[in-house]
Amino acid sequence: MSTLLLSGKTLAKTIQQKAHDEARGLEADGLHPTLAVVVATDDGSTHWYVRSIERAAERAGISCRIVDLGHDATGDDLAVALKDLNADPSVNGIILQTPLPPGVESDELVGHIAPEKDIDGANPLSLGRLAVGQPSFAPATARAVIEILDHFDIPLAGRNVVVIGRSAVVGKPLSLLLLERDAAITICHSKSGPLERYTKTADVVVVAAGRAGLLNGGHVSSAAIVVDVGTNVLPDGSLVGDVDEASVRGVAAALTPVPGGVGSVTTSLLLLHTTQAARQQSRALIPGTAG
Amino acid sequence: MSTLLLSGKTLAKTIQQKAHDEARGLEADGLHPTLAVVVATDDGSTHWYVRSIERAAERAGISCRIVDLGHDATGDDLAVALKDLNADPSVNGIILQTPLPPGVESDELVGHIAPEKDIDGANPLSLGRLAVGQPSFAPATARAVIEILDHFDIPLAGRNVVVIGRSAVVGKPLSLLLLERDAAITICHSKSGPLERYTKTADVVVVAAGRAGLLNGGHVSSAAIVVDVGTNVLPDGSLVGDVDEASVRGVAAALTPVPGGVGSVTTSLLLLHTTQAARQQSRALIPGTAG
Repeated sequence: MSTLLLSGKTLAKTIQQKAHDEARGLEADGLHPTLAVVVATDDGSTHWYVRSIERAAERAGISCRIVDLGHDATGDDLAVALKDLNADPSVNGIILQTPLPPGVESDELVGHIAPEKDIDGANPLSLGRLAVGQPSFAPATARAVIEILDHFDIPLAGRNVVVIGRSAVVGKPLSLLLLERDAAITICHSKSGPLERYTKTADVVVVAAGRAGLLNGGHVSSAAIVVDVGTNVLPDGSLVGDVDEASVRGVAAALTPVPGGVGSVTTSLLLLHTTQAARQQSRALIPGTAG
Repeated sequence: MSTLLLSGKTLAKTIQQKAHDEARGLEADGLHPTLAVVVATDDGSTHWYVRSIERAAERAGISCRIVDLGHDATGDDLAVALKDLNADPSVNGIILQTPLPPGVESDELVGHIAPEKDIDGANPLSLGRLAVGQPSFAPATARAVIEILDHFDIPLAGRNVVVIGRSAVVGKPLSLLLLERDAAITICHSKSGPLERYTKTADVVVVAAGRAGLLNGGHVSSAAIVVDVGTNVLPDGSLVGDVDEASVRGVAAALTPVPGGVGSVTTSLLLLHTTQAARQQSRALIPGTAG
């Protein structure tokens, strides 16, 4: 049988257009949506990625301010930068880009990002709010998985979605979003035993483990929708997901490709979240309209 | 076959004794562990429950301050009371007891409880911290499930634990605690379809749905360990769990009873968390010892 490839490209463009439309609406109200990206590394691929966010933002009519503190920034430098951006009313969204200098813990720093500007859902408070159903931004990657499944009309309510990976960036927030959508969720990981115990009977399998080739065709059923969140760079420089694509193609019902799947949707969601944050912040300034 | 009944009573006494020992250690250091319980209801069974916490605290050498704001307290009254308790260095732990007056939202108020005093893990920030592996108190009921499984040497790593119920008070925090212990977790709920799809093959089934008789013998295997978190009061005043005990006994390998199971462990954990909070707060006052 042939496995349907679920490309994220059309969806990414739709979301970019939506962000663009919202940005124009904000401009019409005299507001200038602005995303700040804090960087503290010399790593070339990170700078390449940050510039790609900047270009996408500019195309959508969103200002992007790159705050580069250099590879020798301290945790205090980064905390001060984040607090300054929190206090700056011209900044609507904040991303703290990893990797950080050796010895600087991202986990501690993200707690400084104001929840209303935390458009990549990095602050533990954002995750907690997501868990209790209060307004908050989910990590863009986790949200991208939901968007791509919705885009292809894949039902979630009452279905069993198996999430491989228990990270605070993807696995856990994605599971919360799936519960909101009335799925039954299963989280497995490197220490939970043979994957096929869970994946063989799953309606949807999402792999977010960061291990190239982790999920193969023997793990899934012919009805399975497989979403590949992995982004692994091979020694030859090529980008692959966590799915052994060659073996899953021909077995599963559908598969998101890497590249061109979830990842392509993620950046567009960062932009959309920024415009949403800008709108919410402008409302919060007008008494009686805060929600 | 006979189903082993996993009583929580011995464990509850052990934890109470541990809280008592820690309270004595704190007293020896000139510290007086104190738990504050904020109440705003006329409901008799709630007052009965709060008095049972007070008695247990006193037996363990912990002061219990009941802050009764009356059934007509406003959200503002409650927020002020919580902030006062946060600022009061003689208070180590804070519980906001439900039910609250009509129109007052617990979800909003618990965000006011300082995380270091949030000994029942009610603040969304506590839940978020739990999710990212930062120090925080889990809700006592969720922690009680782990403690009772540990007490009976039931392995969790690599096992499939099915949690029925997706509340922010039990289902979600318990799932995070189980992931920390390397279990594969499945969360199902009222809208996830037939329970037996998940429960029949589970190693451990935890029911926290708040529906008397929800889980019956037909749902589980003979190897299953069943943990009943439910506390439902029947019209005749008797207390039952979410498990149809008569049908699960004789099928499952083991079952926690209601009453005398998880619930009996929960109060003792509130006391232990209070002494732990007191110890952490005393360390935070000495420069160089804060964690």
